[in-house]
Amino acid sequence: MTTDPIPLAQALIRCRSVTPADGGALDVVQRALEPLGFTCTRLVYGPDDYRVDNLFARRGTAGPHLCYAGHTDVVPPGDVAAWTDDPFSGEVRDGLLFGRGACDMKGGIAAFIAGLTDYLAAHPDHPGSISLLITGDEEDRSVDGTAKVLEWMQANGQVPDMALVGEPTSRRALGDTIKIGRRGSLTGRITVQGKQGHSAYPALADNPIHRLVAALGPLLAAPLDNGSEFFPPTTLQVTGFDVGNRASNVIPATARAMLNIRFNDHHTSATLTERLHAALRAAGCAYALDVDCSGESFLTRPGPFVDALSRAIARSTGVTPALDTGGGTSDARFIARYCPVAEFGAVGATLHQVNEHASVAELRRLAAAYQTIIAEILG
Amino acid sequence: MTTDPIPLAQALIRCRSVTPADGGALDVVQRALEPLGFTCTRLVYGPDDYRVDNLFARRGTAGPHLCYAGHTDVVPPGDVAAWTDDPFSGEVRDGLLFGRGACDMKGGIAAFIAGLTDYLAAHPDHPGSISLLITGDEEDRSVDGTAKVLEWMQANGQVPDMALVGEPTSRRALGDTIKIGRRGSLTGRITVQGKQGHSAYPALADNPIHRLVAALGPLLAAPLDNGSEFFPPTTLQVTGFDVGNRASNVIPATARAMLNIRFNDHHTSATLTERLHAALRAAGCAYALDVDCSGESFLTRPGPFVDALSRAIARSTGVTPALDTGGGTSDARFIARYCPVAEFGAVGATLHQVNEHASVAELRRLAAAYQTIIAEILG
Repeated sequence: MTTDPIPLAQALIRCRSVTPADGGALDVVQRALEPLGFTCTRLVYGPDDYRVDNLFARRGTAGPHLCYAGHTDVVPPGDVAAWTDDPFSGEVRDGLLFGRGACDMKGGIAAFIAGLTDYLAAHPDHPGSISLLITGDEEDRSVDGTAKVLEWMQANGQVPDMALVGEPTSRRALGDTIKIGRRGSLTGRITVQGKQGHSAYPALADNPIHRLVAALGPLLAAPLDNGSEFFPPTTLQVTGFDVGNRASNVIPATARAMLNIRFNDHHTSATLTERLHAALRAAGCAYALDVDCSGESFLTRPGPFVDALSRAIARSTGVTPALDTGGGTSDARFIARYCPVAEFGAVGATLHQVNEHASVAELRRLAAAYQTIIAEILG
Repeated sequence: MTTDPIPLAQALIRCRSVTPADGGALDVVQRALEPLGFTCTRLVYGPDDYRVDNLFARRGTAGPHLCYAGHTDVVPPGDVAAWTDDPFSGEVRDGLLFGRGACDMKGGIAAFIAGLTDYLAAHPDHPGSISLLITGDEEDRSVDGTAKVLEWMQANGQVPDMALVGEPTSRRALGDTIKIGRRGSLTGRITVQGKQGHSAYPALADNPIHRLVAALGPLLAAPLDNGSEFFPPTTLQVTGFDVGNRASNVIPATARAMLNIRFNDHHTSATLTERLHAALRAAGCAYALDVDCSGESFLTRPGPFVDALSRAIARSTGVTPALDTGGGTSDARFIARYCPVAEFGAVGATLHQVNEHASVAELRRLAAAYQTIIAEILG
């Protein structure tokens, strides 16, 4: 490795890009890519009070087309007084790079660009093409970022053949984990309408709490599945149940519940929504169900892309990665609609925390691993 | 019938005895009883900010001792502007006596004293003895009224052999219903303690909503009993269920529920409390259960007292009363601990309502019925 990712990572950390603000971060990326021969397109989306800046950069026009996806927005620093350094200083101390975004994921973007720089130096006339999709809207709404850029890419003939998301996926050692899928997440909000009455005369009322307990009971009594080849079992958690009645002798008119389902590839938001409707109908509920799916489950099955990724990581890091589908959601859920996608990045131990930091040595090894991955896939 | 109950009923209605205020009502009762040969004792109980006046009056010292129990306190008039008359005017119009307490139960007390007056005129040397237990604390707390007077009566050798509570029990026609028992009422407040966490990682949390649904489900799935000889089935109504969590992806730490059980003579508050504990334990809940029993169920089985009551009512009104245990609670629940107790009074169609009223003719017939009852029981 000859290109050090640390100066670029520091330059990115020094941009105050607390989501959805850009703080000049995409300019830093663009200034790093243009000298490498990338054609950069800035794509600004979102309402006036929530403008999101995005960058699509591509080098080459032929296939195979490998896309690296990431985000320069970061979560807020929280209690700044609790930080040892200014969260946006990019201080290096004792072999650690400190700052909001050091591991999630400005360090990762810098490592990719460093590895890319070395790859291009060695392969100025590489086959295929390489692109970067860098958004400023991953940490909060995720509406005017990756999803919108992908629509633009499709409309402009830029859909990649495979994509690598640079989220910090490693658990204990760099290279030990890549993510090849994620569970889906569905939130349901239920309102059951009953008939108010006196608890001494329940026959004249219709208790919506009883209906809701009867609907939820069977949903909670048994697991929705036993997991699948690459996924743990689907989980359903009732996270809210509220009535707001203070009189012990009054049967209330309305009861509300909220639930969140993290689901594997046995389900879709549509099949789960129907399952919720069926449970509510079976309990005789007069109800309203409002469903919000923040991402379907997706899986990139092991195949040429995942195999190449694993080989390259093992060769570069000495660690054979496990294929994982755990954790929350990432923008990979949007990319999965277009092409095979996997996620690989640094150890994310301190992401979103106070004093977030990344190991300087690890970021350098990550740059080398990305260089090896590009070479493995493009040749 | 020679004594008209209406003037006394009007005098009582004109006392503004909104619970727990007395408004001079017990003085009115005492002034009516003393000329009839009753020894009157006033018993004041309660804290400084909730003083309750009560009256115990007895004529004779021998057995059998029949006690008539009632209350002069009334519920608030509510929206006075919605009343046609002043709620405390005791207006008579079109054969109806208007005013707060006309049917619940100043009209009933006046009818009893009128019937008693006529009985004593005909039987100045009656066998046994007659007492009245009139409280000013029935409509709200019911702590410093009948229950405390009964303790005093026990301490002073005044426990009666049987008691008649003058609540308005008739449904459609005077005499059609007497109450020989009431269901008990138990309120339980449950707090289940779980462990907060992220809905994506439920194995690291403990969802208190799931525990509570699992505990309540079996309690609601089947009736607690199928009723008994004189009682309908026990009912359990969950009247509250609250968590207060607004984040759909957060498993909350705590869930609370409130329930009210109206129970028959198959249960006591102790057996029901144990049943709630068992359900919560079975669901593995870490919980707190707070139980408040406002009255055990009680039943005065048909026997000499109830038979005499029924005979007298049928003879006086022409209607054979049904033996009922429905409705809410009354002070009869306290008396049942000491002696057989039954309840008989006017039709209570407008009790607690705006423009509460009683039929003048019916109150006069009620006075005659009470006279017949006293004669039937004492001879």
